[in-house]
Amino acid sequence: MRDKVRVGIIGATGYTGYELLRILRRHPAAEIGFCTSESYAGQRYREVFACPYDYPLIAVEEAPLGEVDVVFLCLPHGVSAPVARRTLEAGARAIDLSADFRLRDPAAYERWYGHKHEAPELLPVAVYGLPELYRERIRGAQLVANPGCYPTSVILGLWPLVRDGALERKTIIVDSKSGVSGAGRGASLKTHFVEVNENFAPYSVGYSHRHVSEMEQELNASGTGPYELTFSPHLLPVNRGILSTMYVWLREDWSAQRVRECYEGFYANEPFVEVLPLGQLASLAHVANTNRCVISISPVRAGHYIICSAIDNLVKGASGQAVQNMNLMLGFEERLGLEY
Amino acid sequence: MRDKVRVGIIGATGYTGYELLRILRRHPAAEIGFCTSESYAGQRYREVFACPYDYPLIAVEEAPLGEVDVVFLCLPHGVSAPVARRTLEAGARAIDLSADFRLRDPAAYERWYGHKHEAPELLPVAVYGLPELYRERIRGAQLVANPGCYPTSVILGLWPLVRDGALERKTIIVDSKSGVSGAGRGASLKTHFVEVNENFAPYSVGYSHRHVSEMEQELNASGTGPYELTFSPHLLPVNRGILSTMYVWLREDWSAQRVRECYEGFYANEPFVEVLPLGQLASLAHVANTNRCVISISPVRAGHYIICSAIDNLVKGASGQAVQNMNLMLGFEERLGLEY
Amino acid sequence: MRDKVRVGIIGATGYTGYELLRILRRHPAAEIGFCTSESYAGQRYREVFACPYDYPLIAVEEAPLGEVDVVFLCLPHGVSAPVARRTLEAGARAIDLSADFRLRDPAAYERWYGHKHEAPELLPVAVYGLPELYRERIRGAQLVANPGCYPTSVILGLWPLVRDGALERKTIIVDSKSGVSGAGRGASLKTHFVEVNENFAPYSVGYSHRHVSEMEQELNASGTGPYELTFSPHLLPVNRGILSTMYVWLREDWSAQRVRECYEGFYANEPFVEVLPLGQLASLAHVANTNRCVISISPVRAGHYIICSAIDNLVKGASGQAVQNMNLMLGFEERLGLEY
Amino acid sequence: MRDKVRVGIIGATGYTGYELLRILRRHPAAEIGFCTSESYAGQRYREVFACPYDYPLIAVEEAPLGEVDVVFLCLPHGVSAPVARRTLEAGARAIDLSADFRLRDPAAYERWYGHKHEAPELLPVAVYGLPELYRERIRGAQLVANPGCYPTSVILGLWPLVRDGALERKTIIVDSKSGVSGAGRGASLKTHFVEVNENFAPYSVGYSHRHVSEMEQELNASGTGPYELTFSPHLLPVNRGILSTMYVWLREDWSAQRVRECYEGFYANEPFVEVLPLGQLASLAHVANTNRCVISISPVRAGHYIICSAIDNLVKGASGQAVQNMNLMLGFEERLGLEY
Repeated sequence: MRDKVRVGIIGATGYTGYELLRILRRHPAAEIGFCTSESYAGQRYREVFACPYDYPLIAVEEAPLGEVDVVFLCLPHGVSAPVARRTLEAGARAIDLSADFRLRDPAAYERWYGHKHEAPELLPVAVYGLPELYRERIRGAQLVANPGCYPTSVILGLWPLVRDGALERKTIIVDSKSGVSGAGRGASLKTHFVEVNENFAPYSVGYSHRHVSEMEQELNASGTGPYELTFSPHLLPVNRGILSTMYVWLREDWSAQRVRECYEGFYANEPFVEVLPLGQLASLAHVANTNRCVISISPVRAGHYIICSAIDNLVKGASGQAVQNMNLMLGFEERLGLEY
Repeated sequence: MRDKVRVGIIGATGYTGYELLRILRRHPAAEIGFCTSESYAGQRYREVFACPYDYPLIAVEEAPLGEVDVVFLCLPHGVSAPVARRTLEAGARAIDLSADFRLRDPAAYERWYGHKHEAPELLPVAVYGLPELYRERIRGAQLVANPGCYPTSVILGLWPLVRDGALERKTIIVDSKSGVSGAGRGASLKTHFVEVNENFAPYSVGYSHRHVSEMEQELNASGTGPYELTFSPHLLPVNRGILSTMYVWLREDWSAQRVRECYEGFYANEPFVEVLPLGQLASLAHVANTNRCVISISPVRAGHYIICSAIDNLVKGASGQAVQNMNLMLGFEERLGLEY
Repeated sequence: MRDKVRVGIIGATGYTGYELLRILRRHPAAEIGFCTSESYAGQRYREVFACPYDYPLIAVEEAPLGEVDVVFLCLPHGVSAPVARRTLEAGARAIDLSADFRLRDPAAYERWYGHKHEAPELLPVAVYGLPELYRERIRGAQLVANPGCYPTSVILGLWPLVRDGALERKTIIVDSKSGVSGAGRGASLKTHFVEVNENFAPYSVGYSHRHVSEMEQELNASGTGPYELTFSPHLLPVNRGILSTMYVWLREDWSAQRVRECYEGFYANEPFVEVLPLGQLASLAHVANTNRCVISISPVRAGHYIICSAIDNLVKGASGQAVQNMNLMLGFEERLGLEY
Repeated sequence: MRDKVRVGIIGATGYTGYELLRILRRHPAAEIGFCTSESYAGQRYREVFACPYDYPLIAVEEAPLGEVDVVFLCLPHGVSAPVARRTLEAGARAIDLSADFRLRDPAAYERWYGHKHEAPELLPVAVYGLPELYRERIRGAQLVANPGCYPTSVILGLWPLVRDGALERKTIIVDSKSGVSGAGRGASLKTHFVEVNENFAPYSVGYSHRHVSEMEQELNASGTGPYELTFSPHLLPVNRGILSTMYVWLREDWSAQRVRECYEGFYANEPFVEVLPLGQLASLAHVANTNRCVISISPVRAGHYIICSAIDNLVKGASGQAVQNMNLMLGFEERLGLEY
């Protein structure tokens, strides 16, 4: 039997880092090489989270990038790109969970993120890590840009229709709701329990959330657009999960039957995407703690449909998808360690 | 000083009944005449809720309708109408919190509610109890149909634009989210804590929820329609509150400035409606435990706007609005007992 | 009719300050004179909380202490005492919600709070503001030390037995559970939504929480002690409320009947304390958003009883009790503005 | 490689059944033979829970007991015992998650459960399935009585001290708090979201909860008792988890050091029990979704300690422990399928 692959986690003490560790510890073919933390370097992992994981936390500068096969980068955008470069230089593969390599156009990156890209030379080699769209390219990649949480739910929910050019109107209304772990583990008034609990609030509505750029890039890559997105994220008083309710208007010749066949055909062999039977609606309960994306289709009236798409933002929306990408990059069975 | 008015509550042991009692006990001009309960007749109120309210619970048949000035009806639709008739016959005013008198057209009622109307002769005298639209008629009414919770949030959120005929497209997307008390106090798997907590789910999406009929009736009463609503309710893991996120497309000559003036003008003197300044977004925290409706306006792109409207479903969406209607019917100051 | 009293709130932008404002705005005999805020001076109140309260926020140094009748101090311990002194010098009454004047012994204060008392000369004139124990002294007080939240629930729950010297063992086990608002509005990992939600955790158990000092002082003031407290606070994933479950061992001649009579007799005329009938158990639902303390008594076996005591930590445990104290100090009816 | 063992689940559509299925599907050596359901027989599993598990649900009478190796019984007490008998007669091993075989004395069973035992002849062969106490006996068992959730947390939290006879006083105060899944999936007002959320309440306090019998049996089996338990369960507004806060008084010669060594020694090789270092306190976050029991020890004063013990009521408190027992009974590695 072959040795296990060694993986390193950069930025292991945020929620995505913790989730990665939980998944990778159960992964039968991976073992943890190192964990870094900016805030807790010098401590043990189990001092930072209420868990028994007893890894030392080191500073990112001390990470032995060359001694592992894969490095997961759970860093803020801007900070991540240079570490990705060093990772590749050290000969390891990099899976970047930040936004740094998601946008192929550095000008778009600068526009949406407010600063110049830190490693534009790597953009051409980065692969957008949504396996349902780019599986083959991911298999050969050295650098994968793990998609954002909202974009994962939205792109998977719309892709079959977009790919087939089914939309009559290019306007798509996306009303998304996310659990609080999506906001990160940093302390702030916005994530204070009393401010969030028993509350529900929209934020950055319309066309201002950075994830819009990623959704547009991918939907427009279909060649059937350009699409005009209206995106309204809301903060849900739950720990994890994203539900996106999407409103689309299709061409006349798209019957409800054809819509179903379009989705079911496209996702027929996908291990982590499920299209619910007519009459059932996607919910967070369908996906919590799994790497699944569950999609429901509701006809409203001729040509008008509501698509609901649910994921766990920490799993399929971040760390689970990252491991799915790792499995592809390393030639493992795609489901390995991600069974539900 | 005049004597207090006496009020009776029919169906006092649901969540709207409990909320009514909480409000009315603090109301300086009202006193409780009787409380009925189908499930708990013969017990005391304090045995049914964790509260110190020590009223006897009687069967509805025993309610001395003629000994009170106002009767609040918190009954299921179909059951409510005959009791409303008896209330009027007994000489009291009736405020009906069920759906029985909200639709002016008995055929529409039968279509949406699945059975014949039980008191169609009263429909012409019933007034739809949304004070911001029908204040003068409510003042003289003997029978008020208290609006539904979702319709209150949606109609108040759209009315200024609809009244002024600002919509270019007659299609309106309404994505609503409601707390669990809106589902009533009856035990069911759908309201089981474990099924709702850490979950979030759409239900009855598209054009199937009964409240659509009420929204359409009122929006179309503007004469600027007809409007085509797509309505998606979702169940939020909170006790109370509704937030409706609405997507509209306006005529070219409606600038953001004009939209604001339209709302601010219409609601300028309303005691319970607030239009937030640009850049702020309505949330449940704005309205919890108050009789307020808080509205925010977000421009997306030319002609396209997101309107968010928040209410507490048990207060402005039910019992608070019922007391507001009582205040109007009896000539009290409209805010009496509803200060926040 | 007399003019309203004017009140000032020092530190108005924490949770107790917000709760005070909510109560005082509905109080028929009070009006807001000023609100201070360390963090938000220069802004308006409505910019800090999702509410319509439109007060200017000023720095504490600019507060016109002499132009109001009563000043509520919602400041951290240590910071509060000097402002209390200035308040009294300016001729206003002070109700201090910090811990600064709760302990009568400055040495005890120094031991538990880790620094010297800032205004020891005022300790002899401060009255511990628990109306059920010190009503008459509060009526004449210029400076009231509003009790801590845990001590309010514990002292009210034990006092009748302690006063009558009913305890065989001087050991009392107090297992308390508090909502998150008790931890204040400052952002920290401990109050991050994801850390608290779906979690439940003890903290500072045994004999280390500062509120132990206050409980011991008051229970021992009965002359029937000294008592030995074991106090275990826990953090509950709710916004508000404290439930204390207390275990006591009584002398042989204390039958269940006598225990009940002891509590019912002592609290017979108390407007805000309720002793539940046998078989019912106190819960947060009994007290949420009210100034009530609800107590239940459960016999376990001969001489051994469980006393449960519930309050809303922001109301009876802080701001409601402060207003109750204000009512007493100013000769108002004690319930004024605190009806439930 | 040997074939997988086949398992059947009787009563698969409650929360423990669902959790069993989740664990067993990931178990590398088990496969699902059948699932029964009283309420949903004839439907598919995925119609009952928001999950992709596509098993047919059959009536218990139709379960092919003889075609599986192990049967998990997730039935109410009283109903379970006869099915256990049939399971053994069919040649399969039985792991009973009900209370039917936990008490060795049928008279005690009748006293606490209010009806005669339905299969008293099996009591002598049933083994109490707490591996930390009875590992060897479980290995050879045909019938295992899976412990109750509260008893698991309490017995594991107290056992080292009890075994060594460390307690000076035989009185033990146990203040437990449980998530709502412990109350089952049946719809009732007590588990209605609005009644539980933002609430916290004790129930069955003192000496009345049925699980007391189980705790006493096991603690007294040490021979160092008899112990006198005071047990206060409370309902927490979370889905899963139990935290028990326990108050004990030890003999003089039990220093804090000796207490630690007692626990650390006893649990040194236990795969699922962790004793936290001094200063850390057990919480639900330590154990959620794992088969772990986490214990903390807090000295209060000479001889007086607070022991906190946390488990996930659905995993170590039910289905995880059942699989741990299965692993032992079938000679698998004890951790198999239960890694965290």
